[in-house]
Amino acid sequence: MTPEQRHLNEFFELLRFPSISTDSRHKGDVEDCARWLADKLKEMGLATEIHPTAGHPVVVAKNDHRPDRRTVLIYGHYDVQPVDPLDLWKSPPFEPEVRDGMVWARGSTDNKGQHFAHILGVEETLRANDGDLPVNLIFLLEGEEEIGSPNLPGFLREHAEDLACDVVAVSDTGMVARGVPTMTYGLRGISCVEFVLRGPATDLHSGVYGGAVANPAMVAAQMAASLHDADGRVTIEGFYDKVQPLADWEREQWSKVADGEASTQAETGVPALFGEKGYSSLERRWARPTAEINGIGAGYQGEGSKTVIPSESMVKVSFRVVPDQDPQEIIKMARAHFEAICPEGVTMDFEEGHYGPAYVMDPFSDFGKAAQTALKKTFNADPVLIREGGSIPIIQSFKDILGVDTLMLGLALPDCQIHAPNENFAVENFEAGIRMNGALLEELGN
Amino acid sequence: MTPEQRHLNEFFELLRFPSISTDSRHKGDVEDCARWLADKLKEMGLATEIHPTAGHPVVVAKNDHRPDRRTVLIYGHYDVQPVDPLDLWKSPPFEPEVRDGMVWARGSTDNKGQHFAHILGVEETLRANDGDLPVNLIFLLEGEEEIGSPNLPGFLREHAEDLACDVVAVSDTGMVARGVPTMTYGLRGISCVEFVLRGPATDLHSGVYGGAVANPAMVAAQMAASLHDADGRVTIEGFYDKVQPLADWEREQWSKVADGEASTQAETGVPALFGEKGYSSLERRWARPTAEINGIGAGYQGEGSKTVIPSESMVKVSFRVVPDQDPQEIIKMARAHFEAICPEGVTMDFEEGHYGPAYVMDPFSDFGKAAQTALKKTFNADPVLIREGGSIPIIQSFKDILGVDTLMLGLALPDCQIHAPNENFAVENFEAGIRMNGALLEELGN
Repeated sequence: MTPEQRHLNEFFELLRFPSISTDSRHKGDVEDCARWLADKLKEMGLATEIHPTAGHPVVVAKNDHRPDRRTVLIYGHYDVQPVDPLDLWKSPPFEPEVRDGMVWARGSTDNKGQHFAHILGVEETLRANDGDLPVNLIFLLEGEEEIGSPNLPGFLREHAEDLACDVVAVSDTGMVARGVPTMTYGLRGISCVEFVLRGPATDLHSGVYGGAVANPAMVAAQMAASLHDADGRVTIEGFYDKVQPLADWEREQWSKVADGEASTQAETGVPALFGEKGYSSLERRWARPTAEINGIGAGYQGEGSKTVIPSESMVKVSFRVVPDQDPQEIIKMARAHFEAICPEGVTMDFEEGHYGPAYVMDPFSDFGKAAQTALKKTFNADPVLIREGGSIPIIQSFKDILGVDTLMLGLALPDCQIHAPNENFAVENFEAGIRMNGALLEELGN
Repeated sequence: MTPEQRHLNEFFELLRFPSISTDSRHKGDVEDCARWLADKLKEMGLATEIHPTAGHPVVVAKNDHRPDRRTVLIYGHYDVQPVDPLDLWKSPPFEPEVRDGMVWARGSTDNKGQHFAHILGVEETLRANDGDLPVNLIFLLEGEEEIGSPNLPGFLREHAEDLACDVVAVSDTGMVARGVPTMTYGLRGISCVEFVLRGPATDLHSGVYGGAVANPAMVAAQMAASLHDADGRVTIEGFYDKVQPLADWEREQWSKVADGEASTQAETGVPALFGEKGYSSLERRWARPTAEINGIGAGYQGEGSKTVIPSESMVKVSFRVVPDQDPQEIIKMARAHFEAICPEGVTMDFEEGHYGPAYVMDPFSDFGKAAQTALKKTFNADPVLIREGGSIPIIQSFKDILGVDTLMLGLALPDCQIHAPNENFAVENFEAGIRMNGALLEELGN
């Protein structure tokens, strides 16, 4: 059996666990998956422990640590998203198979394929180096990422000493294109708010009362619409005050990323792009703050017509925040904005939601340069330095609790279908991940 | 037994039929109700026929018509609204009882009580006049009003000759307050539209793509919000061009209706009133055109947050139109308005909905004055002349097909709870209705 075949066989074993963390019926599967990983890590000679939590277990594995070496923590998650709607899958989500050079299975990219490549990379290095590694290594594998990692920050705090490290490495982000090594050095943060507007005591007949009362559906629309001007800028007072402008090198790097306008349009399927004037699509997605309506609702939404003035309406808004915006301050600004414009014809019940800051590290730090070199060696191409638009709260927890930066060396391709039917992972990226781990540990060990 | 007791006993028999027209399980009950009414009218000596339709039957009854008399058609409907939620009723909806001077039952006000008062009024007149009436009378009682009278216009066209008349009388509108005789001489019309906006091919992660695409939820809010200016005026170009201004006598009459501002606020329960500047609440409700959002929806509307950019959104809008607006033209104007502002980041699927013109008659015509006199005699008070804000399509059908005006002499009190649990009808209004019928036929016969 070739090493590649052996790697795939083991990967398939891991993929067969339906470790859906959000579904309590799969609690046993999640545990079985953790045990399988722990057995694998033990077999590789690592000191491995399964830590129960209030939810699903955390697996921690280490080699023998020596004080003269850097300590690298590799994070991954072995839980997966649900698989509905099942009938859209071309092959069953937990019966992995290779077609067209891709592994098709739930969790293949997110995140089993990416962290298991690291595990196999470590195994190869251990085998080639008589059981030694160039760094002190910690594997930290959780089973609750897809439900928001509710127990991980507590776990980090409780085991902060045991998990002390110089840097974290995670492969859970994307590559801008096949064959283009990609390092993500920044993420947007988030601030969520929502409000309910109440007007009439009950739904009213829009013939009998229409024109004489503020319609909560209309007020919701007006208040939501107030968030943007015609150029796509957020109108909340002070919203942009602390935003750090993009550096020249960032704009230059990103302008070289394979056509960001075309790819954004292709990936989203929109009839035309739209966004803040003066910025490219990638700049808008990765480095500019936003206000988005995630939900709005009032009145009759079924077929046909029902001529009511609804008694209430709701709006959910999330802001993506960038360095150096303060996400709690953004929530306060949003509250002040909506309170100032809420008309007296309705009452507003405003709720402050969850939030988290943006994250950014210096890709030209020693660690950043080591990661860039590892990527270049693995893919034989200069890495692209990007940010991503989403939030990864756990990255912020590593910064806040362990005090270290995270190298995000993602292997996900744009069409990998994570969280959707027909999730897939390129076999070449799986193998590249194994090699990348070796190169990364070598660079970080220097 | 007093006549009043006899009237109530028969009324209760009529109320016991659960003649819910929208519910096919009650088809037999609707038919039984029609037969009961036909039997009653026959017993009174009227030539009565039950006409089957594609839906529920129409009952037509006539006295002997003489060419030297005016012909009056009295319209009513014997079908009722559903009764859900049943547990909110203080007494069972089809077991009528009198409490606090009110008859409590589904259909008591809408419309069994009001048309049955006319029937009993005719019976009293026939009894007092040796079987004669001062007019040629036609009773037209339908069983499909609560489902939009789908078969009545066709029935009117088919039997136009048989139903030819000089004027129609209907008691299916409201009194402004207990003891205040009220004649409704105008109704607003309606124009409905709706549109769906489609942007991304699927719901997008608002972190990954937020800021780079037009968000259909936001565009829906912006397009809905575009309908009004800050003063509550509709912004659609040409919307007010054909609107007839209120006459001085109308504004004066309505300003005397027991405090319209207070009653509108009390009935609706809004924290504050709002509407087009320069008009009172009653003027806004009865004589000014409106644009109302009846439904708006997009994205995640459940508990908590889901940070999506929804792939689509929907908005339902209805306009109340007034003399001399053309409801079809208003739909065209709305389409043009939305098409002009729909941004290129979304595609719009616009649907033209149902429509009907406003109705107004001259309350100082011969028929109008006869109705006013009948009301004054019945209630010993000067009648108030009002319009209402809702639409009654059948009134327009009488105008269009039979070519006659309708006298709307409603007996419904503001707190009668039609279409809701605990519908009720004041016993005093039931008796007043019986007397009013006599006075009306006498006046019209002069």
